[in-house]
Amino acid sequence: MPRDQETAMLPLAGMKIVELGHYIAAPFATRLLADLGAEVIKVEPPEGDPVRGWGSAVDGNPVWFSVHGRNKLSVTLDLKSPDDRAKLLRLCGRADALVENFRPGYLERIGLGPEALHGVNPRLVIARISGYGQDGPYRDKPAFGAIGEAMGGLRHLTANPGQTEFPPPRCGVSISDDLAGIYAALALVSACWGIKGNPAAKGRIVDVDLVSSVFSLMEGMLPEYGLFGWVRQPQGAAIKTAAPTNTYPCADGKWLCIAGNSDLIFRRLMTAIGQPGMAADPRFANNALRCENVAELDAAIAAWTRGVPAAEAEAVLEAAEVPCSRLYDMADCATDPHFRARSMVMEVADPLLGRVLHPAAPFRFDGVSPEAMLRWTGPAAGAHNHHVFGELLERDDVRPMAGTPESRDPHAGQKDA
Amino acid sequence: MPRDQETAMLPLAGMKIVELGHYIAAPFATRLLADLGAEVIKVEPPEGDPVRGWGSAVDGNPVWFSVHGRNKLSVTLDLKSPDDRAKLLRLCGRADALVENFRPGYLERIGLGPEALHGVNPRLVIARISGYGQDGPYRDKPAFGAIGEAMGGLRHLTANPGQTEFPPPRCGVSISDDLAGIYAALALVSACWGIKGNPAAKGRIVDVDLVSSVFSLMEGMLPEYGLFGWVRQPQGAAIKTAAPTNTYPCADGKWLCIAGNSDLIFRRLMTAIGQPGMAADPRFANNALRCENVAELDAAIAAWTRGVPAAEAEAVLEAAEVPCSRLYDMADCATDPHFRARSMVMEVADPLLGRVLHPAAPFRFDGVSPEAMLRWTGPAAGAHNHHVFGELLERDDVRPMAGTPESRDPHAGQKDA
Repeated sequence: MPRDQETAMLPLAGMKIVELGHYIAAPFATRLLADLGAEVIKVEPPEGDPVRGWGSAVDGNPVWFSVHGRNKLSVTLDLKSPDDRAKLLRLCGRADALVENFRPGYLERIGLGPEALHGVNPRLVIARISGYGQDGPYRDKPAFGAIGEAMGGLRHLTANPGQTEFPPPRCGVSISDDLAGIYAALALVSACWGIKGNPAAKGRIVDVDLVSSVFSLMEGMLPEYGLFGWVRQPQGAAIKTAAPTNTYPCADGKWLCIAGNSDLIFRRLMTAIGQPGMAADPRFANNALRCENVAELDAAIAAWTRGVPAAEAEAVLEAAEVPCSRLYDMADCATDPHFRARSMVMEVADPLLGRVLHPAAPFRFDGVSPEAMLRWTGPAAGAHNHHVFGELLERDDVRPMAGTPESRDPHAGQKDA
Repeated sequence: MPRDQETAMLPLAGMKIVELGHYIAAPFATRLLADLGAEVIKVEPPEGDPVRGWGSAVDGNPVWFSVHGRNKLSVTLDLKSPDDRAKLLRLCGRADALVENFRPGYLERIGLGPEALHGVNPRLVIARISGYGQDGPYRDKPAFGAIGEAMGGLRHLTANPGQTEFPPPRCGVSISDDLAGIYAALALVSACWGIKGNPAAKGRIVDVDLVSSVFSLMEGMLPEYGLFGWVRQPQGAAIKTAAPTNTYPCADGKWLCIAGNSDLIFRRLMTAIGQPGMAADPRFANNALRCENVAELDAAIAAWTRGVPAAEAEAVLEAAEVPCSRLYDMADCATDPHFRARSMVMEVADPLLGRVLHPAAPFRFDGVSPEAMLRWTGPAAGAHNHHVFGELLERDDVRPMAGTPESRDPHAGQKDA
């Protein structure tokens, strides 16, 4: 099927979004919406979203932004200028939704609060992302990067019990921004679903915060605390109630995660590592007994893994049908046959960077290939000023994104003159 | 506003979902959809979703399920019985979407694959969640809990560099199931948005997997690997390019995360901890210099935090306007004034458990209180057999969820006779 026809089959084809985002949370929300087929107009200050200054660059073009800004149109506006604020309102007038992640109260202060936005478009969905939410006593506290992890309860758990020399490590990615972004996208599309086809429906205001987003993952810990006063403590790489299941050091300095805690798998595991005696030992006959004697088991398994490189140990255990995975680093991900076969890793032509690797969208739809979901790479700041202000606003009733020749233009990423 | 009117304002009021889920990923997806106002019918085997056996229980009623199953209707069906499969198809006939997380191929084997489901409802959206996805060479590998974290690249990063005595800890929550669940919910609602109001639209099949869901958070690491061969390594609790920002041990054994890396904040921080000399020292005058001399800074800050309990240290630094947060455990979350003021923590009457604490939904909408989003707590398995098969299927054209008296029945959670 031709790419443009696939693109037209994306579920959000026809939805129009304005992004007033910077850094991670709001831009990640709109990137997902753009992957899903929505038209996303990213509004940046004249100097560009400051996230463009993060990480590596080629000839001044930031590498991460190739992914972070993909499938979006970029325009630049100076929100301090009344003319540019009027342009923003015109964009909102034709949009289904706006996503923003300024500090609570900022949009109101510059005259672009929900009242003003609903004044030009009463059906607009306004998704607001912030560190602590739009109200409450901490609303105005500075929301630094790790706040969601720390206050949402995650960071307390990401630790090795009894280990005091090293602090609990960060997640290693912007997990709280990402979660808030995905939740904002979900809430936004849900609000749009509620409005669609209902002429009486009014726009909505959505409030998503980083702390609640992380806190939402705390499983049964809150009711257990309320009922019994229990406070879940970190478990490191092991699971107290299942053995052996842990992460073991390998000869090449890498780690191998092994889930060997069912009776049958346990026996296969111990036989595979040359410990058939332990496989048959009544002291390890069931999970409860193995949990009691877990130190001995972990020591035996680690003694074996220490002598074998991670990929090799993984192959041995997979042949014995023992669930396991080495801890993939980016080289492992980029070269893995499954990642490549599923197009989870794709080679893409970026007009600003050359050939780059992109991750596929984390959802796929029958009839649309992952390649067709990636319409273009992250553009330069303001690359679509002329397209949006010169053309798009002039033909509001025409759906602009579904594979028009221009939207497939490989030069879309280049800087506007 | 009366609760029922608020509930009717939930964005997905009127959407109908069938859940064929177990454990975490699919049930988490549908719980979010239920929080958003959709009618969710959870189909369980006669013995119940095995997740009901996880964690603590009161009189045989699992505590986590109060949250994990909230706002859902529970029915029990034996999918090996032709009569019960026919009932399932009747549920699908009136639904907008189905969510499942069986192993790839299982539904097809029992005669409930997409072809059969679209046979009774050509517009049904079918969201499928699996460990590795519906195709590709690893499709049939066993997907154990930590697989997404390990293979998606997260676990490699959640570690302290150079630390080999302890393995990189788990995230501490079911992060890959949760992410896959949220992505599946987003993709499902997006597909429903595309279909709504378009009589020609056909149902869709959505494919979400745990590994891709985690891999989607890897920021710019994949294009950086492709362009430069860089492989991001773990950074522990620090950030290489910003100083001082780290997590420090306190007198009570807890940890305090401090983000003191901007020039002004750095000076306030060092003054607050009794080191005005370091605040003024030219060796620490800007971030680049501080990164070079970060060991000395971290040692000075830790020397101070070690003498103060975490909550007290946090209060001192907050008074000095230094962004920081102690690593909250569940007691901290449950009692925090902001969590309480925002109803992020709510006291709820559970007919099976008594008074329990619930987290609010991680998104809120103008005009709907967090309390109104929580309509009822997780029901017993099969609690709604009579309601669904005896009543709901008989009156398909009536929207059943928007605040009908029954849906607010506090006995909804009790076991069916």
